[in-house]
Amino acid sequence: MSVAIIGLGQIGSSLGAALRKRRMEARVIGIVRRPAAARRALALQAVHEATTELRRAREADVVVMATPVRTILDLLPRVAKLLKPGTLVTDVGSTKADILGAARRHGMSFIGGHPMAGTEKAGVEGCDPELFVGRPWILVPAHGVRPDHVTWIGRMVAGVGAHPVWMDDPQRHDAAVAAISHVPYLAAYALLSSTDEGPSALAGNSFRDATRVAASDVDMVVDFLLTNRRHVPAAAQAFGRALSRLTSAVRRGDERALRKALEAARRRALALLRCSSETGNAPKGPPAAVGRKSF
Amino acid sequence: MSVAIIGLGQIGSSLGAALRKRRMEARVIGIVRRPAAARRALALQAVHEATTELRRAREADVVVMATPVRTILDLLPRVAKLLKPGTLVTDVGSTKADILGAARRHGMSFIGGHPMAGTEKAGVEGCDPELFVGRPWILVPAHGVRPDHVTWIGRMVAGVGAHPVWMDDPQRHDAAVAAISHVPYLAAYALLSSTDEGPSALAGNSFRDATRVAASDVDMVVDFLLTNRRHVPAAAQAFGRALSRLTSAVRRGDERALRKALEAARRRALALLRCSSETGNAPKGPPAAVGRKSF
Repeated sequence: MSVAIIGLGQIGSSLGAALRKRRMEARVIGIVRRPAAARRALALQAVHEATTELRRAREADVVVMATPVRTILDLLPRVAKLLKPGTLVTDVGSTKADILGAARRHGMSFIGGHPMAGTEKAGVEGCDPELFVGRPWILVPAHGVRPDHVTWIGRMVAGVGAHPVWMDDPQRHDAAVAAISHVPYLAAYALLSSTDEGPSALAGNSFRDATRVAASDVDMVVDFLLTNRRHVPAAAQAFGRALSRLTSAVRRGDERALRKALEAARRRALALLRCSSETGNAPKGPPAAVGRKSF
Repeated sequence: MSVAIIGLGQIGSSLGAALRKRRMEARVIGIVRRPAAARRALALQAVHEATTELRRAREADVVVMATPVRTILDLLPRVAKLLKPGTLVTDVGSTKADILGAARRHGMSFIGGHPMAGTEKAGVEGCDPELFVGRPWILVPAHGVRPDHVTWIGRMVAGVGAHPVWMDDPQRHDAAVAAISHVPYLAAYALLSSTDEGPSALAGNSFRDATRVAASDVDMVVDFLLTNRRHVPAAAQAFGRALSRLTSAVRRGDERALRKALEAARRRALALLRCSSETGNAPKGPPAAVGRKSF
């Protein structure tokens, strides 16, 4: 089995390193634009082989597109043309609707993927074979994808330590990540831009935790925000309304309403923290069975 | 030198433990409501002596009020009556305007304090003698406080490893913490209450970081939000406006505006993270000299 990973940022290089380290019996070819990145990926043992030639994707049984979403959209037509028949294509992009639409138009056997993993370290230097351990990895198969492709991708995701979570609607995926991922980014940037330098030098842990993701690579963030224009505004509005309700309770001095809202939110925060401390980073429960629509 | 700490939650017990561990040559008496908490504080070596009798504060040269703000406001008149003349009173409450107003009315020699430290662990079980190391500790002296009291409190704060940061206007303190501390809490609760249970089971690190503070003790949070009703709404509005500007750039697909805002915010996020990794948790630069108004 030969796997070509196009793009060796943190996710692409970590996937390669995880496939190598966990002896998945896959030969991993990394395809990158810059020769320096190819050399670095080899030095870090992220791949078995590294090249700058896109056409090498032709050799692969599985192609993983691991660039930003808009680059995936740019590359898809070229990749579609050069693949051998029966190649499974997947990706690790943060939004799914545009990518699945393009894959359908190009007649690919495609299963969209989105590992809920990553840190603020960008590029191949953020390579970590343990990055996916215990993390959800959302999988959104295109219609009519081959059953053996479904089996294989589920095995790959579980093989690198992640929990496959199957979803059938890419719009639903994008709406969900708008709320749980993209709005937290916007909130972090908004916290930083609405406070002066002076006071924020006094920042406690609450401010630092709340703004940590704003240290992420800006290209990556711009990419997922702009490819999720359909869902981010609604999710941000829902967040803004929740904030207004809380602020209004503070303004009115309505202790009862405030306490009720805070206690409900706290129960969910504790559940999330318990998840991460009990099982590494894992959400509760066994990994979803391959092929099961668990969302 | 005898120090009475009234209230042995995480901050009070950690202060006691830090004073003991760092051999500040102070005898520490903990004053708590519940006998069980007194026994637990002794077992954890948070204090030299623990009692449930408030009147024992009479023996102290320094009294540290370490309960929630509203309890401090309730206790201040009683404490004022029983102190011997020349006792320095300080506190560790999250808001300062109400407390300094009450201290002035009761004619106390008072220096308001606010350590920017603490975790989501509540109570004496969160006791940690290293809790203040490298953290800012804001000090707001009342008018006409004795110079030797200023010296002593600066020494105590530096002695437990914190950086004294002197401010002269309690309203300015409260406005600053509304923006850098209280709004991040509101944002965390709002994120949790505006997302469904389903998607948030998929939460990545961004969601977990952004909502971590919502696991905090609700009594503590309600206390600082309601005693900062004057400043929290304006800070929340400024945050909401920054969020709307970002959301609008996403909706319009205005990559240039979005990128510019994100890059400015990222520089500040990186500076904050650098601070915390270079010097433990410390903000950059040497600790402010005692008596210097650095804010």
